[in-house]
Amino acid sequence: MQFLTAGESHGEALSCIISDYPSGVSVDIAFINNELSRRQKGFGRGSRMSIEKDNVKILSGVQKGKSTGSPVSFLIYNQDWQNWKDKVEKGRNLLNPRPGHADLSGILKYRLESIREVIERSSARETAARTAAGAFAKLILTSLDIFIISYVNRIGDIKLTRKVNIGNRFNPNVNPEDRTLVEKIEDSNLRCPNDKISSLMSDLIKKASSQGDTLGGAFRLIATGIVPGLGSYIQWDRRIDSKIAASLFSIPSVKAVGFGKILSSKNLRGTGYHDEIFYNKRSGFYRKSNNAGGIEGGMTNGEAIDIEVFLKPIPTTKTGLKTVNIKTKEKTISLKERADVCAVPSAAVIGEAVLAVELLNAIQEKFGKDNIEEIKENLKNYKGYLNSI
Amino acid sequence: MQFLTAGESHGEALSCIISDYPSGVSVDIAFINNELSRRQKGFGRGSRMSIEKDNVKILSGVQKGKSTGSPVSFLIYNQDWQNWKDKVEKGRNLLNPRPGHADLSGILKYRLESIREVIERSSARETAARTAAGAFAKLILTSLDIFIISYVNRIGDIKLTRKVNIGNRFNPNVNPEDRTLVEKIEDSNLRCPNDKISSLMSDLIKKASSQGDTLGGAFRLIATGIVPGLGSYIQWDRRIDSKIAASLFSIPSVKAVGFGKILSSKNLRGTGYHDEIFYNKRSGFYRKSNNAGGIEGGMTNGEAIDIEVFLKPIPTTKTGLKTVNIKTKEKTISLKERADVCAVPSAAVIGEAVLAVELLNAIQEKFGKDNIEEIKENLKNYKGYLNSI
Amino acid sequence: MQFLTAGESHGEALSCIISDYPSGVSVDIAFINNELSRRQKGFGRGSRMSIEKDNVKILSGVQKGKSTGSPVSFLIYNQDWQNWKDKVEKGRNLLNPRPGHADLSGILKYRLESIREVIERSSARETAARTAAGAFAKLILTSLDIFIISYVNRIGDIKLTRKVNIGNRFNPNVNPEDRTLVEKIEDSNLRCPNDKISSLMSDLIKKASSQGDTLGGAFRLIATGIVPGLGSYIQWDRRIDSKIAASLFSIPSVKAVGFGKILSSKNLRGTGYHDEIFYNKRSGFYRKSNNAGGIEGGMTNGEAIDIEVFLKPIPTTKTGLKTVNIKTKEKTISLKERADVCAVPSAAVIGEAVLAVELLNAIQEKFGKDNIEEIKENLKNYKGYLNSI
Amino acid sequence: MQFLTAGESHGEALSCIISDYPSGVSVDIAFINNELSRRQKGFGRGSRMSIEKDNVKILSGVQKGKSTGSPVSFLIYNQDWQNWKDKVEKGRNLLNPRPGHADLSGILKYRLESIREVIERSSARETAARTAAGAFAKLILTSLDIFIISYVNRIGDIKLTRKVNIGNRFNPNVNPEDRTLVEKIEDSNLRCPNDKISSLMSDLIKKASSQGDTLGGAFRLIATGIVPGLGSYIQWDRRIDSKIAASLFSIPSVKAVGFGKILSSKNLRGTGYHDEIFYNKRSGFYRKSNNAGGIEGGMTNGEAIDIEVFLKPIPTTKTGLKTVNIKTKEKTISLKERADVCAVPSAAVIGEAVLAVELLNAIQEKFGKDNIEEIKENLKNYKGYLNSI
Repeated sequence: MQFLTAGESHGEALSCIISDYPSGVSVDIAFINNELSRRQKGFGRGSRMSIEKDNVKILSGVQKGKSTGSPVSFLIYNQDWQNWKDKVEKGRNLLNPRPGHADLSGILKYRLESIREVIERSSARETAARTAAGAFAKLILTSLDIFIISYVNRIGDIKLTRKVNIGNRFNPNVNPEDRTLVEKIEDSNLRCPNDKISSLMSDLIKKASSQGDTLGGAFRLIATGIVPGLGSYIQWDRRIDSKIAASLFSIPSVKAVGFGKILSSKNLRGTGYHDEIFYNKRSGFYRKSNNAGGIEGGMTNGEAIDIEVFLKPIPTTKTGLKTVNIKTKEKTISLKERADVCAVPSAAVIGEAVLAVELLNAIQEKFGKDNIEEIKENLKNYKGYLNSI
Repeated sequence: MQFLTAGESHGEALSCIISDYPSGVSVDIAFINNELSRRQKGFGRGSRMSIEKDNVKILSGVQKGKSTGSPVSFLIYNQDWQNWKDKVEKGRNLLNPRPGHADLSGILKYRLESIREVIERSSARETAARTAAGAFAKLILTSLDIFIISYVNRIGDIKLTRKVNIGNRFNPNVNPEDRTLVEKIEDSNLRCPNDKISSLMSDLIKKASSQGDTLGGAFRLIATGIVPGLGSYIQWDRRIDSKIAASLFSIPSVKAVGFGKILSSKNLRGTGYHDEIFYNKRSGFYRKSNNAGGIEGGMTNGEAIDIEVFLKPIPTTKTGLKTVNIKTKEKTISLKERADVCAVPSAAVIGEAVLAVELLNAIQEKFGKDNIEEIKENLKNYKGYLNSI
Repeated sequence: MQFLTAGESHGEALSCIISDYPSGVSVDIAFINNELSRRQKGFGRGSRMSIEKDNVKILSGVQKGKSTGSPVSFLIYNQDWQNWKDKVEKGRNLLNPRPGHADLSGILKYRLESIREVIERSSARETAARTAAGAFAKLILTSLDIFIISYVNRIGDIKLTRKVNIGNRFNPNVNPEDRTLVEKIEDSNLRCPNDKISSLMSDLIKKASSQGDTLGGAFRLIATGIVPGLGSYIQWDRRIDSKIAASLFSIPSVKAVGFGKILSSKNLRGTGYHDEIFYNKRSGFYRKSNNAGGIEGGMTNGEAIDIEVFLKPIPTTKTGLKTVNIKTKEKTISLKERADVCAVPSAAVIGEAVLAVELLNAIQEKFGKDNIEEIKENLKNYKGYLNSI
Repeated sequence: MQFLTAGESHGEALSCIISDYPSGVSVDIAFINNELSRRQKGFGRGSRMSIEKDNVKILSGVQKGKSTGSPVSFLIYNQDWQNWKDKVEKGRNLLNPRPGHADLSGILKYRLESIREVIERSSARETAARTAAGAFAKLILTSLDIFIISYVNRIGDIKLTRKVNIGNRFNPNVNPEDRTLVEKIEDSNLRCPNDKISSLMSDLIKKASSQGDTLGGAFRLIATGIVPGLGSYIQWDRRIDSKIAASLFSIPSVKAVGFGKILSSKNLRGTGYHDEIFYNKRSGFYRKSNNAGGIEGGMTNGEAIDIEVFLKPIPTTKTGLKTVNIKTKEKTISLKERADVCAVPSAAVIGEAVLAVELLNAIQEKFGKDNIEEIKENLKNYKGYLNSI
């Protein structure tokens, strides 16, 4: 699927067009809206999240509840728009760029009058559209028994170091997926499956909030049930880890991405690091470890894709940061556009969405993009081949 | 510049075609060959590096020493080819996939007879072609006063934690570039500017070598002299950090990429993290810190691009790893194709090359791609605008 | 500019997202709506044209009347939607594919239940969105003194063979543009500048209409004021004629495209065919003929781009055509979805739009895509260079 | 398959890299070289054709006679290089641009010193590389029972108007392919299946040659055996006619492309034009006419793809054309680089090659790109579906 998003943070609506979405998919709007709702949750989000209850309004590409193969377009209206309309259209030019944001480079690159014109698009509000696009991708992945989950494993200096076991639906006998775990994550307002750590994180957020500060952190992103051989080693721009990483870095505030155990390995020694290969009839080729994070040689290897993603703290802090008026060059303090303290749980949900899009793309590339039944047949054909060798 | 590479590790030659390389560039072949030589250096590389003395043979796109705008194509002959020719063409099928490599997924994806056909292309030998392509990009960047350097800051568990100061040619008054440092890096056979750490790294490599083991590590990659506003926040796939990350992940063994100080920040708090904005006549807008690594909102911000890149250990270990024969499914030990113990210094040079390509692409997108003088004029025009506001 | 459209013929709205539209453009909505109105005119169109009065509703990318560089999204509501809503959603499956349409291949490719799901997207209604996208492109071209005009030169077997002289704004002294001509075209309900031919065409359309038949034809498309050197010969996929042709063939019913005099030349002899090169101070290099249609070697040559585009007759004829029920395989007669007799004048306006997009893309590639003032400066720089040699 | 070519007309070698060429294809080098030989034939070509006997030298992507999925790279050495080496490198700057060629716009766009640097790349010599790339595509198409043929139907004012019947392998009962016809075309030194017309064409070429003139013309291009549903109507840039046209216009001298009977229809009336739909068990859905040229709604419809392609006369005429010295601006006569009188037969062979590439791309998009057996299985699966409805 190819897609473009548009829309400003306080504009009338976000919009999205998805081209090459397969026909024959039952489009479950409640599921899509629930994904939008998952994005909006999370302790540490500001008051706007209670204003916006995001919903997709589908304009095309779906008839009688099913995708038709024609481009899907949808809108997500900004509930807050009426309040902001005049502020944005008639408001004075904002001239004090916020450190850590697109403000300064954006106004220079596009020769704009006001930082407002940068803020409105560089805002993470745009990720609502991508979360919905990712939900469309998930609808297909789920029907192919591919599942994506995420949890928060760091906020500020509070880290979840206990290993969380995640299954691999393609090799289901190795590590059966722990549904209790998934439910625990979804129930936590910080997407953290460990109550004690979660509680420490909450305390830290409260403290940062009271100090007018913000917090970054990290989340883990896992996808299970994926056949080996998606992506490729044959050309530098065909690697699936490159594509997944590019998508993850497109989430505002993401500043590092690591696959598998690379960032937690103490000594990085070959023996002991690489995932040895085993075989049994039921699972085919499988591994007993997954330090590679499910990707070797730019291709999926059949194990769970396992990624760690790091976010810088939100740039807009209540206490303000030193900056310079873009016209007068006078020293000043940056504006406080937004009141979120920590957006890591939301970012994890967005991470799921962008990963879903990349996995669907890799699947469409290998198994066709026109119709869900055709994709299933071609995938079945490939799995049959894998079993035959 | 758009480019494709081709060629097998033990084939007759690697080849590369670069399309949209600007005309009017003086093509310094000695410089390009020196980049290839820099890639081949590094303590811990196996015996093949003494066989191959890589050189580019340019077939097109250059006339009378200058690029013509027509596609540049070049070959890098494999000196070792004659020895391998029969081995590869007549050799028995290799059937024991190496954990950590493309072997298993590659043979499944492409339905091949032998792992040989995967190895030959998924080998890091391919990066010689990309290093040369990056050298072509560097020829232009240098003429625009953009410089890229790299150094190794970790091998196994030995880390260089001392802060290394790097200048920023676009804001030259902030941190004058330390040429002594650059020379120190180039003189070190591990690309490490600290003698004591370098010595510990050497010892570790010797030890790993004697144990039949391999080592991963990390390098730092810096680019200076870059105008603000390359890349964009307007669409999810336009961010320059996404593009740079994708290119870096396309280097074999790279498993994590972080921008700025994200991976070394202890508490990830907003105040104290974001790079406050200052102004003076000489430098324009500038920062006193660079925790963002030179990129905010998916765009360069005028500060040095600063990236940390992590590599897993080389998968082929002398001691072998458990695997399974792809046909018989019998347990066995993986083959030992290659004798390198550690390739981090080489990877750092390749990292420079792929970063150079991405920076040139961002420049060509904003300032044109046809002719070097035209690019310079358009860049000058933009700098003039930046000074005028 | 990169763009996607979405929307069904009888859906709620067409939508469009344009990414990489430069900032700083005064977005004249009246102009855009007038382009939509020009597309809807034309003798021979059916009754729907009187129902739909197309207007763009801009959702993003424009603030205080100016483009911001952020993606432009807009909707064009279908006035007819309320009437069709139930027909489309609850209607019986259409199973009789119309010869000449996407119906048969579409239902096979996407495994659809009903031809309705193909018709809705393959309908030429989609071109309303592209006409508006082209209008955005024209806003920029006009400010760069590039003008595009079109006229109908054939309907059925009635042809306009008289040579119509068109100016070339880039070489204004050669053939001053004839505003009278342009006005004549716009005043004609068949976009034909010759009253006598126009009258014959009208008669033919009336006759075809009374016979339940439809008519194809041809239009001429001209763009003036274009600098030499857009497009390129260096790689097979970089030629501007290839790109323009691809865009023109994407207009429903277009089946042939010719540049310059190729299709009217009797003997195709080299001497006499090629446009000899002249020079004078005021115009620079110029030609006295334009048989090449303004493109040599895949590049603009500074003369007017001159294209002839041929359309097959509208497939949906009142008299019906033989076809087969897709399920029962019984012989039947195709449905009559639409009552237009001839759409050549509308296609000419769409042709202008898609040409505008391709010209803007070629300009953005050479002169930058971020801001209209920057593009103007870089273009001026290039013109300065052209004058200096 | 994605591919780039490089190389100058009188350089050491042309080169080409094909990425995403499926594994498992038996690479018949004799077939590829024969395609190169077919391109070089044709009455009316100059003396160079007797110097160059093109052969591919494959450098990568093929092992033990089979493609491996890794990028295919090959060279075509220029036999004439040694003679030209000094001429090109040391030769005086050429400053008189040839009308009809890339010369003038090329030297302006790329700010070159000499027209030599344009000529070398814009020369049709580059199409040798594309003919070989197309031969790689044909190897796959043939194994899928898709065949492409071409014949010359016009040179100068001599036209072949007799209808030539071409079969359709996908609906083999409709029009069995006439092997006699194919052999007749291949035996003709003008690729013209009609002896009388062929003789008139020869006479015309001789006459033009004696007058120092050149000739354009036209060829017909047909592909049979193609399933319906390649390409798409869902997005403006997905139409297969757009893609085929873009590729055909990338052949030097091509100035018009028409599908089906559009350019020979006298009255362009709907009734009588569109290809009515029939069905029988053996053929599935089929047509009794093919005025659409095998493409409806931007998709193949199962009938033969049928295209007419028009070429302007070769620009370099012995008698010379008026031009201007690029530096002195003095009037002069264009240089005579090449002695061909007519290249239409060669262009027809190149047309086959570029069509083959586009068809393979459409097939890879729908049926996968990794391995030939997988493509065959997925295609079989689709044909099974087509038979089942």
